[in-house]
Amino acid sequence: MNAAKQIHGPHVETVTVELGHRSYPIVIGTQLLDSVGPRIAESFGHVHATVITNPVVAKLYLERLAATLNEAGLQITTIEIPDGEEHKNLAWLTFIYDRLIEAHQDRACPIIALGGGVLGDLAGFAAATFLRGVPFVQLPTTLLAQVDSSVGGKAGINHPAGKNLIGAFYQPRLVLIDLNTLATLPRREFAAGMAEVIKYGAILDPDLFELVERELGRIFSQDEELLQHIVKVSCALKASVVARDECESGYRAILNFGHTVGHAIESLTEYKRYLHGEAVAIGMAFAARLSHLRGYCSQETVQRLRELLVRAGLPVDMPRELLGRSFVLTVEGDKKVASGKVKFVCLEGIGRTRFEYLTGEEIEAAAHGIVS
Amino acid sequence: MNAAKQIHGPHVETVTVELGHRSYPIVIGTQLLDSVGPRIAESFGHVHATVITNPVVAKLYLERLAATLNEAGLQITTIEIPDGEEHKNLAWLTFIYDRLIEAHQDRACPIIALGGGVLGDLAGFAAATFLRGVPFVQLPTTLLAQVDSSVGGKAGINHPAGKNLIGAFYQPRLVLIDLNTLATLPRREFAAGMAEVIKYGAILDPDLFELVERELGRIFSQDEELLQHIVKVSCALKASVVARDECESGYRAILNFGHTVGHAIESLTEYKRYLHGEAVAIGMAFAARLSHLRGYCSQETVQRLRELLVRAGLPVDMPRELLGRSFVLTVEGDKKVASGKVKFVCLEGIGRTRFEYLTGEEIEAAAHGIVS
Repeated sequence: MNAAKQIHGPHVETVTVELGHRSYPIVIGTQLLDSVGPRIAESFGHVHATVITNPVVAKLYLERLAATLNEAGLQITTIEIPDGEEHKNLAWLTFIYDRLIEAHQDRACPIIALGGGVLGDLAGFAAATFLRGVPFVQLPTTLLAQVDSSVGGKAGINHPAGKNLIGAFYQPRLVLIDLNTLATLPRREFAAGMAEVIKYGAILDPDLFELVERELGRIFSQDEELLQHIVKVSCALKASVVARDECESGYRAILNFGHTVGHAIESLTEYKRYLHGEAVAIGMAFAARLSHLRGYCSQETVQRLRELLVRAGLPVDMPRELLGRSFVLTVEGDKKVASGKVKFVCLEGIGRTRFEYLTGEEIEAAAHGIVS
Repeated sequence: MNAAKQIHGPHVETVTVELGHRSYPIVIGTQLLDSVGPRIAESFGHVHATVITNPVVAKLYLERLAATLNEAGLQITTIEIPDGEEHKNLAWLTFIYDRLIEAHQDRACPIIALGGGVLGDLAGFAAATFLRGVPFVQLPTTLLAQVDSSVGGKAGINHPAGKNLIGAFYQPRLVLIDLNTLATLPRREFAAGMAEVIKYGAILDPDLFELVERELGRIFSQDEELLQHIVKVSCALKASVVARDECESGYRAILNFGHTVGHAIESLTEYKRYLHGEAVAIGMAFAARLSHLRGYCSQETVQRLRELLVRAGLPVDMPRELLGRSFVLTVEGDKKVASGKVKFVCLEGIGRTRFEYLTGEEIEAAAHGIVS
């Protein structure tokens, strides 16, 4: 076996997140999982590593991951966290701290997140805060995590009062995206990941948007070349935004397109009814309509976005029962609030956005206008 | 009242921590407390701020702080945390998160820490992790906090397994040091703060060391000019180290002189017997002796450091009952461990250091050699 060839195989492409001395590569390809060991050893030496995963993903991929890490001379400790957003909390974070201490992990020992976005957020926050920060590696296994949550360094946990209220900006040292892990992803979750791909097209890249419109079928049948292309372009788009504004002082908020209302929907339905990408799809359709109502974009733009989301199997209509006072309060409780107004991402056309500072009342009024 | 004059009064000096776009000023002077309101308003606008303090400090200074903040048009929420290292934990951190959420604090709202090092660490970690980071202002009221913990961005909480095991590097936006708050500081705590001043002299600045040797009496009687000078020089020395290596990738570890053993002593005596600065004093005397035993520095250097610590009323001898296996394990459990060895700061002379990677056994052997 040629390790060098294995590492630099023909199907591998790299996107770099440019953040000075904290820059890091996102390696994207097929059959990457079995080369993780040599890659980690190359980056961090023959250290003791901790793999944080969940039982669903562990059953599918942990054995292969452990094999490649052990072969490369790394000792590992595994921490399993139950699957689901409801476990992204302080209690499970504490559980992770306790296991890391028991395993005598020191500052040189990386934490490897194997799983989706929820797991990556939790493991990333543990890595950010254990010993004031240890090396962090992401192995995202869902499309949503591959194109969104594993890129850009947002880590955190939920608070009973809202999602991601506690967290940090903490960049991974390495992201390894094995596209083959998507083969086991339920179609509904794949579609939820596509919501973020469509978002990148809608806010930043008309070519990507058109490609998804044109090739939606082949994307859903997981044509490898096409999948690699859209994941790479999505990561590159997000990386360029993050490089420009790592800590969301301003421009990075563009990525929240569809998310302000999306988060409110998730919160009011207690994270049970919609996947994150589904709530964002509703939020994007809403934001596009609100943008049109305020005269920022054409009805045609609204329609084009809405149709693509529907074709991808995503919901686009705000559930009527969510409207009203609590909806406004939830929007206002969102952490992107600055002194009472929400920084709302509006659409000017496919690939063009503008920020508007709106009150909860203005958003609610738009919601009623849109639904009724 | 002339606000401009109040802000830029004659007794004020500023040290800048140079960290690119995250650079911040440390403002040092007398009677600063009453000018905090205009200073905060100037930096952050007329926002809602949260003051985190403890009942001891609150009784002395909260009324004045609240008055200046209110006069400057800031609304404030106050969170009181019981005094003492044992409250620097996850439970009280959670308490702070809950209060911040209840007060509807958003990303523009600063957290102001009014108190000593323990409080600053806890409040700083809350600021680092609430909404992925909110503006943080330090108003240190102990000498230890003024010359050490409020400078450099280390924030964190303790874990039952060890001190500061959970934390982050998170820089304040502003540090305001009112030297007059030291007037109410017990002499023992003042001496503990002097341990860190002596440390800066010992590792980086022979002139500072000599000044403290020469003027110890006037420093303890809190001669304002002298106090301002040593606080300013100490902050500047720490700031220069932090600017060179913010996240302790290498050089910053120089500041841990006396701390590896100091932390072990604190931990084994359950943070009850010694103040932090006292444990560090013992640790520095130990590190100097170990350095001499290994041939790095002269006996004269050991003696000079030891004498100054004793004159400052600080302990220098390792308690015999702490020696043995658990001492080594505690040293090894310190988070500055890299793959089994401790990065130990040794002295080559007053103002000169070297790093040595030592095993717990080597340190323990030295401990026995020193004590017996």
